[in-house]
Amino acid sequence: MINKDSLTHHISQQFNAELEEVRSHFLAMGGLVEKQVNDAVTSLIDADSGLAQQVREVDDQINQMERNIDEECVRILARRQPAASDLRLIISISKAVIDLERVGDEATKIAKRAILLCEEGESPRGYVEIRHIGDQVRKMVREALDAFARFDADLALSVAQYDKTVDREYKTALRELVTYMMEDPRSISRVLNVIWALRSLERIGDHARNIAELVIYLVRGTDVKHIGLTRMQEEVQGKGKDS
Amino acid sequence: MINKDSLTHHISQQFNAELEEVRSHFLAMGGLVEKQVNDAVTSLIDADSGLAQQVREVDDQINQMERNIDEECVRILARRQPAASDLRLIISISKAVIDLERVGDEATKIAKRAILLCEEGESPRGYVEIRHIGDQVRKMVREALDAFARFDADLALSVAQYDKTVDREYKTALRELVTYMMEDPRSISRVLNVIWALRSLERIGDHARNIAELVIYLVRGTDVKHIGLTRMQEEVQGKGKDS
Repeated sequence: MINKDSLTHHISQQFNAELEEVRSHFLAMGGLVEKQVNDAVTSLIDADSGLAQQVREVDDQINQMERNIDEECVRILARRQPAASDLRLIISISKAVIDLERVGDEATKIAKRAILLCEEGESPRGYVEIRHIGDQVRKMVREALDAFARFDADLALSVAQYDKTVDREYKTALRELVTYMMEDPRSISRVLNVIWALRSLERIGDHARNIAELVIYLVRGTDVKHIGLTRMQEEVQGKGKDS
Repeated sequence: MINKDSLTHHISQQFNAELEEVRSHFLAMGGLVEKQVNDAVTSLIDADSGLAQQVREVDDQINQMERNIDEECVRILARRQPAASDLRLIISISKAVIDLERVGDEATKIAKRAILLCEEGESPRGYVEIRHIGDQVRKMVREALDAFARFDADLALSVAQYDKTVDREYKTALRELVTYMMEDPRSISRVLNVIWALRSLERIGDHARNIAELVIYLVRGTDVKHIGLTRMQEEVQGKGKDS
């Protein structure tokens, strides 16, 4: 099983340092993305267009971080020709960084909706749902990153499992908001802003799940994409007991 | 500049064969995904729930193709330690395959909306827009794949540029549909099905653009993500004249 110790006993100290560096850059990007989600949700709930604007500006930094991490991964692949768990680390990071960047994009979209709501006036409904689902997906992002940092496949599994809950609550919220719009058609445009923000939150949950799946791949060496939660659990817990 | 000839003069015939194979698997997956988008849009416009159901069933095949191609890429990275343009080919494929799979997901979502529209009754508006934007994004997917097949950075550039047009038309369509819903609130639920389908089409355009950007990276060796269309054009055309 992969862990920090196996990385630190690497033959090449320089190679080691490079792997640790790209890993820490990835986690730093994760921290910033997490903050963006937090700020975006807050800006929408508090109708704080200044904070929303700030979220939109920070997105450039995140894009730049993605480019840099990508470059580091390609450099390591080209010069170091990593194998086994080192290769899996680079592959996982180079994929997870795409998800992180898209989480950043969704945060920006939420901030855009916050600005529109400041301009058009508050939505009569939906803030409770935004706060609630916002809390859930932020937790997913944080735990997916924690799982990455600690090579923790069990935590990653629980993140992937939790995505079902978010999807269910998202659908319930959507149904209620659609019913509300039918009763008060003048609110349609404002309620739709909340619906789009909820949609972005649901997508953030999907990306957190993708990152969690990459953690399982990194730690267990098995690709658990598209295999369903039952088989995913068997992969994580079954092999966990053997090793 | 990379081209098919440089691949065929590779030292290792076996390595060559593996690169060609993964490339052809990627393009085959692309062909199937393109068909899925086509079928999904047709099923929605023709209210053909049988065809929509078929789209949903084929999605498993696409997921399996993604897993297989992923495995091939990892195997090549681990055993062949590719460099330069070979490495870029593997990196591009392993990223573009994620976009292709998500295009497949969006096609499935459109098919789901088609089924809901069959059950709830047709939307009073939006079919013209679905057909129109559907044609546009299918063209983008096809051309992005053609650009990949032919290492054609100019065609890839035009795909990336075209995404702006799709985004603009998507926004116009959305505004009109929101206005319609306000006038006829009883139609909200049905019109929303069309809106979600349009949203999926717009996302398909984004993924086609991502694939096009990967073609430019593959051919020119420059990461053109997030740099804006003007600089992207300079990268493609500027360097094109030098080489």
